Amino acid sequence: MNVATAAAPRTTTPALERLDTPALVLDAVKLERNCVRMRERIHAQGVALRPHVKTAKSVEVIQRALDAPAGPITVSTLREAEYFFDYGFRDILYAVGIVPSKVPRVAALVRRGARVSTIVDDIEAARALVQASGEARLRIPALIEIDSDGHRAGVRPGDPRLVEIARTLGPALAGVMTHAGDSYNCKSIEGIREVAARERAAVVECATTLRRQGLACPSVSVGSTPTATFAESFDGVTEVRTGVYVFQDLVMAGLGVCAIDDIAVSVLASVISHQREKGWVLVDAGWMALSRDRGTQRPVA
Amino acid sequence: MNVATAAAPRTTTPALERLDTPALVLDAVKLERNCVRMRERIHAQGVALRPHVKTAKSVEVIQRALDAPAGPITVSTLREAEYFFDYGFRDILYAVGIVPSKVPRVAALVRRGARVSTIVDDIEAARALVQASGEARLRIPALIEIDSDGHRAGVRPGDPRLVEIARTLGPALAGVMTHAGDSYNCKSIEGIREVAARERAAVVECATTLRRQGLACPSVSVGSTPTATFAESFDGVTEVRTGVYVFQDLVMAGLGVCAIDDIAVSVLASVISHQREKGWVLVDAGWMALSRDRGTQRPVA
Repeated sequence: MNVATAAAPRTTTPALERLDTPALVLDAVKLERNCVRMRERIHAQGVALRPHVKTAKSVEVIQRALDAPAGPITVSTLREAEYFFDYGFRDILYAVGIVPSKVPRVAALVRRGARVSTIVDDIEAARALVQASGEARLRIPALIEIDSDGHRAGVRPGDPRLVEIARTLGPALAGVMTHAGDSYNCKSIEGIREVAARERAAVVECATTLRRQGLACPSVSVGSTPTATFAESFDGVTEVRTGVYVFQDLVMAGLGVCAIDDIAVSVLASVISHQREKGWVLVDAGWMALSRDRGTQRPVA
Repeated sequence: MNVATAAAPRTTTPALERLDTPALVLDAVKLERNCVRMRERIHAQGVALRPHVKTAKSVEVIQRALDAPAGPITVSTLREAEYFFDYGFRDILYAVGIVPSKVPRVAALVRRGARVSTIVDDIEAARALVQASGEARLRIPALIEIDSDGHRAGVRPGDPRLVEIARTLGPALAGVMTHAGDSYNCKSIEGIREVAARERAAVVECATTLRRQGLACPSVSVGSTPTATFAESFDGVTEVRTGVYVFQDLVMAGLGVCAIDDIAVSVLASVISHQREKGWVLVDAGWMALSRDRGTQRPVA
C-alpha cells in the first residue's frame, strides 16, 4: 500500500487520481489537529504525554505528536524501539511484559544511550529481569503492570504480590502502569469516565502502597485513547500513554471519542467490479489494506 | 516477526529457544509434503498448476510449489507481480479486476518480458483495458471472470454480457476464470465436491458459449484450495489456482482439507504474563503476528 499526505483535500483530487490503489491517504491537517488537541489537554493537567507509537509506526507522525522532537514514547515491539532510537528518541517504555530472551536487545539499546523501561507483573518475571540485566551488567528499569479492569495482564490492586514484585526489582523499580482496555467496550462517555476513574484509582492506590513501604515509585502511568480523552482527573498520575488519537478510527468514532470528520487516515481504492443486480461494488482494497477494520460492525454514534 | 525454517523439529529445540519472539516457524518437511501432494494431484489430471502466491509471498516457497523454477503463478497485487518477475517468473495472472490506472505498471512488466494476464467482468472494464493497452501500444490479455457461486465478482453463466465482453476484448481475450469462494463455507467434503462441480461447470459452460460464437478461449481456470483438493473432475479445465495449501491453516483443517499436523507454519511466542486465577497465559504474539486468525472460532473437525 502506498502512503500519501494530503494537506488540502479540496485541491488535491488530481494528485489522488494519480495514486496507485489501494493507497493510505493521510490528512495532515486532521493529524495536526488531533495531535494538538491531545497534547494541550494532557499538558493542561500538568501530566506528561508519552504517545504509543504502535498505531502510526512513523517518526514523522510522532514528531508532530510531541512538543520536543525526541520526547518520551511507548513501543509495543523492540523493533519499534530500535527504529525510533535511530531517529533520536531516547526515553522509551517497552509496554509488553519483558522476558529474559529479550533483555540482550534492550541492553544493546541502553548501551547506545537509550533509557528503556520495561514492564513486569509477576515475581518470577521480576527475578528473571533482574538476573538477566545483572548478566548484561546493566540496570534495566521496570514498571509493575496493574490490572485496573480484569481485561488483560497485571497485578490487581490490593494483591500482596505487588510489594513482593517491587522488592524483587529493588533499585530497578521505576513505577506502576496500567492500560484501561475496558474503555473500548463502553456504551457512553459517562462509562468511559467511570473506567478512567477506576484506571487512575488503581495505579494511585498501588503507588501509595509502595511508597508506604518506603519504595520509590516515580512513574504512575495510565493510558488508552478513550480514557485519555475523557478522564476527569489525573491526580497522582505522572504520564498518559495513548496512540490511536493521532489518526482516530471508526472504533473511536463509535465510542464518541472523535467525530467521523476527525479521522485522519482513509484508504483510497479503485472499483474493480460492479454487481448491479446486488447493488455491490467491489474495490481493490482487501483485508490487508483495511487491517480488517471491524469498527463499523458496531453502530456509529 | 522473524521467519525461520525448521527442517527437523525434534533436533532444533535449542535453535527455537534462541529465536526472538514472536517468530514465524516454517516446517520445511510439511511445506514440501503439501507442495508435492497438490502438484501430483493436479498434474495427474493433466491440468496445469498456477499457484496463488498471495499466501506465501515468497519466491523460495513458490519455487518448491512448482516443477519448473519459474512456472505460472497467480498474484493479488502488482507488487507481488514485480517481485516474482525479478526472480524469473514470467507467466503471471493478476487475479484482481484490472482498472485503467494500473495498466502502466502492467505494461512496464510486459515490456520487460513478462506475460501478464488480467481479469475483467464488465463491458466497461473490457473497453477501458483495450483503450489503455492501446495507449501503451501493447496487447494485454484478459480472462473474463465468471461468478460460479454468487460469492463475489464475475459474470453469471448464461448472462448475455459474457459474449459482449469477449467481443469487446477482441484478440485480448485469453479465456475464462472463476474462484469458488463458497467452498470456504462448506460443512462437509461432499459439500466441497458439489461446489467444485459447480465451479467447473460454470467455466466450462462459458468457454463452450464463447467457442460456439467462434471466439478463442484458451484458458479455463478454476481455483480454491478446498475445490482443488476434492474436485472429482477437471474435464474442460486447463489450470488450477490454489494458494493456502502450501502452508495449510486452521480454516482448512476445520473444513477437512488437511489435518492439523499438515499445517506447516506456526508462531513461536513467549509467555509474558500469567493470570493464575483466570487460568490465562498472555503471549507476545498479538493480532499482527497471528493475522487475527479466526480459524478456531469454528470447531475443528
